[in-house]
Amino acid sequence: MTEVLDSRQSWSTRDVTPLDDATLARVDAWWRAANYLSVGQIYLLDNPLLAEPLHRDHVKPRLLGHWGTTPGLNFLYAHLNRAIIERSQSALYITGPGHGGPGLVANAYLDGTYSEVYTDVTQDSEGMRKLFRQFSFPGGIPSHVAPETPGSIHEGGELGYALSHAYGAAFDNPDLLVAAVVGDGEAETGPLATSWHSNKFVDPLADGVVLPILHLNGYKIANPTVLARIPESELLELMRGYGHTPYVVSGGFDGEDPAIVHQRMAQVLDEVLNEIAEIKQAARDGSLTERPRWPMIILRTPKGWTCPPVIDGKQVEDSWRSHQVPLASARDTEEHLHVLEGWLRSYRPEELFDATGRLEPEIARLAPAGDLRMSATPHANGGLLLRDLRLPDFRAHAVDVPAPGATIVEATRVLGQWLRDVVEANPSNFRIVGPDETASNRLQAVFEVTDKQWDAEIIPRDDNLARAGRVLEVLSEHQCQGWLEGYLLTGRHGVFSCYEAFIHIIDSMFNQHAKWLKVTREIPWRRPIASLNYLLTSHVWRQDHNGFSHQDPGFIDHVVNKKAEIVRVYLPPDANTLLVTYDHVLRSRNLVNVVVAGKQPGPTFLTMDEAVAHCARGLGIWEWAGTEGRGEDPDVVLGCAGDVPTLEVLAAADILRRHLPDLNVRVVNVVDLMRLQDEREHPHGLSDREFDTLFTPDKPIIFAYHGYPWLIHRLTYRRTGHGNLHVRGYKEEGTTTTPFDMVMLNDLDRYRLVIDVIDRVPHLGTRAAELRQDMVDARLRARQYTRDHGEDIPEVRDWVWPDAGQTATEVGGPQADRISASAATGGDNE
Amino acid sequence: MTEVLDSRQSWSTRDVTPLDDATLARVDAWWRAANYLSVGQIYLLDNPLLAEPLHRDHVKPRLLGHWGTTPGLNFLYAHLNRAIIERSQSALYITGPGHGGPGLVANAYLDGTYSEVYTDVTQDSEGMRKLFRQFSFPGGIPSHVAPETPGSIHEGGELGYALSHAYGAAFDNPDLLVAAVVGDGEAETGPLATSWHSNKFVDPLADGVVLPILHLNGYKIANPTVLARIPESELLELMRGYGHTPYVVSGGFDGEDPAIVHQRMAQVLDEVLNEIAEIKQAARDGSLTERPRWPMIILRTPKGWTCPPVIDGKQVEDSWRSHQVPLASARDTEEHLHVLEGWLRSYRPEELFDATGRLEPEIARLAPAGDLRMSATPHANGGLLLRDLRLPDFRAHAVDVPAPGATIVEATRVLGQWLRDVVEANPSNFRIVGPDETASNRLQAVFEVTDKQWDAEIIPRDDNLARAGRVLEVLSEHQCQGWLEGYLLTGRHGVFSCYEAFIHIIDSMFNQHAKWLKVTREIPWRRPIASLNYLLTSHVWRQDHNGFSHQDPGFIDHVVNKKAEIVRVYLPPDANTLLVTYDHVLRSRNLVNVVVAGKQPGPTFLTMDEAVAHCARGLGIWEWAGTEGRGEDPDVVLGCAGDVPTLEVLAAADILRRHLPDLNVRVVNVVDLMRLQDEREHPHGLSDREFDTLFTPDKPIIFAYHGYPWLIHRLTYRRTGHGNLHVRGYKEEGTTTTPFDMVMLNDLDRYRLVIDVIDRVPHLGTRAAELRQDMVDARLRARQYTRDHGEDIPEVRDWVWPDAGQTATEVGGPQADRISASAATGGDNE
Repeated sequence: MTEVLDSRQSWSTRDVTPLDDATLARVDAWWRAANYLSVGQIYLLDNPLLAEPLHRDHVKPRLLGHWGTTPGLNFLYAHLNRAIIERSQSALYITGPGHGGPGLVANAYLDGTYSEVYTDVTQDSEGMRKLFRQFSFPGGIPSHVAPETPGSIHEGGELGYALSHAYGAAFDNPDLLVAAVVGDGEAETGPLATSWHSNKFVDPLADGVVLPILHLNGYKIANPTVLARIPESELLELMRGYGHTPYVVSGGFDGEDPAIVHQRMAQVLDEVLNEIAEIKQAARDGSLTERPRWPMIILRTPKGWTCPPVIDGKQVEDSWRSHQVPLASARDTEEHLHVLEGWLRSYRPEELFDATGRLEPEIARLAPAGDLRMSATPHANGGLLLRDLRLPDFRAHAVDVPAPGATIVEATRVLGQWLRDVVEANPSNFRIVGPDETASNRLQAVFEVTDKQWDAEIIPRDDNLARAGRVLEVLSEHQCQGWLEGYLLTGRHGVFSCYEAFIHIIDSMFNQHAKWLKVTREIPWRRPIASLNYLLTSHVWRQDHNGFSHQDPGFIDHVVNKKAEIVRVYLPPDANTLLVTYDHVLRSRNLVNVVVAGKQPGPTFLTMDEAVAHCARGLGIWEWAGTEGRGEDPDVVLGCAGDVPTLEVLAAADILRRHLPDLNVRVVNVVDLMRLQDEREHPHGLSDREFDTLFTPDKPIIFAYHGYPWLIHRLTYRRTGHGNLHVRGYKEEGTTTTPFDMVMLNDLDRYRLVIDVIDRVPHLGTRAAELRQDMVDARLRARQYTRDHGEDIPEVRDWVWPDAGQTATEVGGPQADRISASAATGGDNE
Repeated sequence: MTEVLDSRQSWSTRDVTPLDDATLARVDAWWRAANYLSVGQIYLLDNPLLAEPLHRDHVKPRLLGHWGTTPGLNFLYAHLNRAIIERSQSALYITGPGHGGPGLVANAYLDGTYSEVYTDVTQDSEGMRKLFRQFSFPGGIPSHVAPETPGSIHEGGELGYALSHAYGAAFDNPDLLVAAVVGDGEAETGPLATSWHSNKFVDPLADGVVLPILHLNGYKIANPTVLARIPESELLELMRGYGHTPYVVSGGFDGEDPAIVHQRMAQVLDEVLNEIAEIKQAARDGSLTERPRWPMIILRTPKGWTCPPVIDGKQVEDSWRSHQVPLASARDTEEHLHVLEGWLRSYRPEELFDATGRLEPEIARLAPAGDLRMSATPHANGGLLLRDLRLPDFRAHAVDVPAPGATIVEATRVLGQWLRDVVEANPSNFRIVGPDETASNRLQAVFEVTDKQWDAEIIPRDDNLARAGRVLEVLSEHQCQGWLEGYLLTGRHGVFSCYEAFIHIIDSMFNQHAKWLKVTREIPWRRPIASLNYLLTSHVWRQDHNGFSHQDPGFIDHVVNKKAEIVRVYLPPDANTLLVTYDHVLRSRNLVNVVVAGKQPGPTFLTMDEAVAHCARGLGIWEWAGTEGRGEDPDVVLGCAGDVPTLEVLAAADILRRHLPDLNVRVVNVVDLMRLQDEREHPHGLSDREFDTLFTPDKPIIFAYHGYPWLIHRLTYRRTGHGNLHVRGYKEEGTTTTPFDMVMLNDLDRYRLVIDVIDRVPHLGTRAAELRQDMVDARLRARQYTRDHGEDIPEVRDWVWPDAGQTATEVGGPQADRISASAATGGDNE
């Protein structure tokens, strides 16, 4: 099941006629079968076909799961099956209300996919018994749609991302229909509310089509939903305002015959798919001159549709009370047990399955063939479709480094030049997403070969906007993350470039994706997908325009709480190491890679060969920066991770070298943060012996770190020398507007680091005491200078590593241009 | 400035007529003055009144700030001033595009507030010089609207929360108009996109009015905005679909005379305010029978309006190029310096300020009086309006504890009963917000005295929905957080009850609020506000319905990265300690309190007197649970924090007591997590001596912790005994569906803890070795039982602390009812 369907099969039209009797019966039978299997999963341990009267021992002791959304999901699945068969349409089903897990499992079982991937769960009564028993049962499967569920790329455990995932799946899949069910609960979330606007970012020609289906069943856990309680006219205006053409299907209330609702649904679905086919045709023949108003469906049915309407005198169907388990005492009271049996039998299982438990062939015909089954589509197991990126040689973009620190460049700008080549070499399976920051983050070289994809109005004054393009920019980190997740999960590659502080906006989305990856690693039939790659720039240390509110390096802390095998964190200190790092992460699979790199001009320390070697080790001693003699032990270790901390550590090393030439100083730079961790805790972790060799077991370690200092302690707390470790990092100290002010405020500055060394290395003598006082004075002088002049003191601003000497050059222009560049290239920071 | 205005002054109507010449001139002059002062702040170090020709030394060396949004903000401010004066309308201004900081500072300076709170910044040329110089300058003020800005409760550094903050401010302020400017960039964010629906949650009678003003200036940092590039008809449908009546003001393009735009704006503002007044009148006289379609304004003006249209041949005004600093080389090139001077002089400063720098009196008349000035409104300095809550005695809700663990209750249900009394005693300044989970989280007692506020359709079948109520529920954590922040910042109190895992959705909002609090503490004129109180329940250890995707205890880790003086974390182990804790947090000020407590039935360990004493200490030895003799040192310390870890530690202590009676075991429970930290790092931190007394400096400490184990290491890494500390906590291990399975999977279970003790205490002998094997067997047996039966093994499920003996009773019904209760009360989990 590795081939995507031929495009000629997709986007056909057909006459809109009522379902003939046989088709109607088949659709209804499928729906009943899926409902029966769903109820069975929630309640039954045994007696799957009700071959005998239901006994309390057939009922699970703990009833877990969600019924309310499930019949609607099943209803849509059955109808989509019919349409898929008739049109040979490749389709992916996104289950916004992912807690309707039993429904998706049921449909995958009915169409045969489930038994193909879980051969133990056969299509007979014993298999059905296992299917029921395993659901939300110890050692079994989760109650939500999950990685274990064939056909799913979307768990929906945390709500809000159905549409952004759907659009992510649709990009660059021109023949794919993505049917995205949005629950009316989920529709209240922020991420979902803005994701309707994704339709302004989709290319009608080169991308697939998302068909949003807003399922109004009216209730959440304990409340009605907002969209179900506004007038329909208002809801239609909202959908039109979002740029869609809405179609309404409503029915099933107060016992309305499902056959009538089936006909309504079938007719609307055919109309909608015809409309989509016409838009696609117009896109292909060039007659589409403006953004299409893609159709969407509003499906209004009762919550918990077909469950017992009233239980214990309380309304359950068409009420929030059907959200989870409507009959919670089925094992404990005869009355509830009786109601449960009646409910199950109301689906007439004897018409659906033969005595062995096999689905009746006439019903099974509603399953599309092979990969056309929504449960079997390779798009939902993206690793099957994944192709390696063609990665141009990053060495071609190497920054020339005649001496350490001698060349000053904006690291992300250099990366952008390589990414331009990556984009060019991979025109249909690589995307860059970002919240309006691609240029601000200095990646604008990519616009030499591609555009920002945009299907809203374009005016002549606009730059780099086009209906098709590799870059997707919208001022919503949620949308960026959701699109990229959907894109990766369906077998493609990408990068999310974002301001460091605001990546916290998607903390919870990262959680869900990391959990998804963690679980898929344990599922043999799930093939590895491309890693989720972040480029976090405009970082905490250079928020000159914005200050305190834009300062937060804590995403790294958040990330390392997740399973070690999933997460990687890189802090390349310069442009060459950034290039090496990014080449590495774009080749990786099934990971989340967090790469933090500044966009401001900074020195390049390593030649490309050195950078390759340094990144391969992940960390290492920079001998040229230290003063230790060969074979000698250092007196002190200066550790650094991150570009600004590295600069300050080198400046401190320079001071020490000049003023305390007898002090043996070792400089260790860390690119791959996880190297600090114990090898037993992280696959990249150093052995204790390696760690001791680098950092010594007994010498003072002054470590300058990009983020909150705790993390370094946390990563190293088991190390021999941990008691000697002193970490400087970001401390939630306030607003400032010059770079050196910022590092001083956080005691991460060169002068403070020198003081730290003097305070921790014993027996340094008078000369050190004098130097200490000089450092105190230097700090006061530096601070006063910024207050008087509004910029950093020249001795700091113009400092370069001494070996760089007079050869230091800034590639891209002089100092003055740094600032004006921000206005010319789309702004420095938001 | 401590009194809110008399309601009789608000919500008046007036005839809609064009502005007379004098008023038009005054509005325009104010606008020009605000624009002049804004440009001055961005560029000038000196020569504030342009008394001499502009010289490069008058220009700041680093140009930081955002011009693009500023003229629009100033325009609206001037027009609102006119309306406020004419109608004596109390108003608060929410600056969605908070990066337009210079504008808000300029207006506060013009109306006199700025010089009142910063007496050094006088209303003369020297004061103006200081005003200019301090902006985005080392030691000065931030470039954004910030706590330092009078009249602001909203920084807008991270975008998305303008409307939810505005509605939060409006709740229970029936006479307040909240003018909320939404930038068209911000409008693309998820939180903002859903916050339009806040209008279904506002009570037209008892709440104030939010007037959203969508400012379409067309561009973000480097792109056009979505809403500016859809047809206006579509945008109007969107706003109507959101339930508003939109009014459009458009102008200023291609050099259009501002006087014409002023007239348009004034007319629409008058129409809109009249319409609001009529709705308020209808609400008061009872003739309002359905949800009003509140008006909103779409203001379409050029980005960077009034700046030089073209610079260096590139379009700047009406382009993204005006987003930040349009003339970046003003200090470096004569040409730009000349353009800057021309731009400044275009506002005709000589007409606006007299030779001393004082605003001309005729213009100053546009400042409303006293507290009616939007910069001076006490609503923006909520501490001025804050009144203590009337807190009923929580002891009245004490759970009777005849012996430790003898009474089994749902802790949050007990808290709910006290919160009911809190609600009753504080009918207009206390709110509970939550994402559809108040009942799920067992707080439903509050519905005995109040309802869920809801102004969408209500049908007879609904429970506890009403136009007015103390509880606000919407399935958007962003909205909940934003509403509560707005409510607290304007001087009221509240609680946010949320599933633990999904509170990460608002990680970044928490960041911004914590930073705001941190800065306000350093601003003398900002009075303390009520703390932001979280109740995190449905926590990581009991996600029976939902599994892995709902498991994440990392919000605590996120929170403790913020400034220690701001954050508190509490993990009450039972119902009585939860009551004590919540009484405490509701009395606190200027903090973020995170309280984590389970909603599932659990034992109550402490009597109320004991709970009060334990919570006062924040942690302590539970002598009754340990086996150490008086005056003896323990052989091992069992630490615990969190309800489930405490239960497991006690069960382990019970096993040890029975099987290794000679082992001296100490049990230490931690309620206030910050007590673990060093006193030098957190105000609640223990001294090293206290810590050593409790945990010993040299004995093994087995610590069972609610969350990720790292945090305990992090908090204690400086303690003497840290090398002896072994922490068990949550490990990102997968899905499970029974409570004991979950703790076993994470090695936090009683059997594992006993093994930990045996493995770490030396010289325990044969009996311990046998017990160890029993524990291994017990784990295997327990796991197998769940796989066979689907529920926990009875020896675990039914375990109670031995002193509780046969007296253990479950308040609220037997075991079977636990599960059915979930369906009856609105669901267990989402």
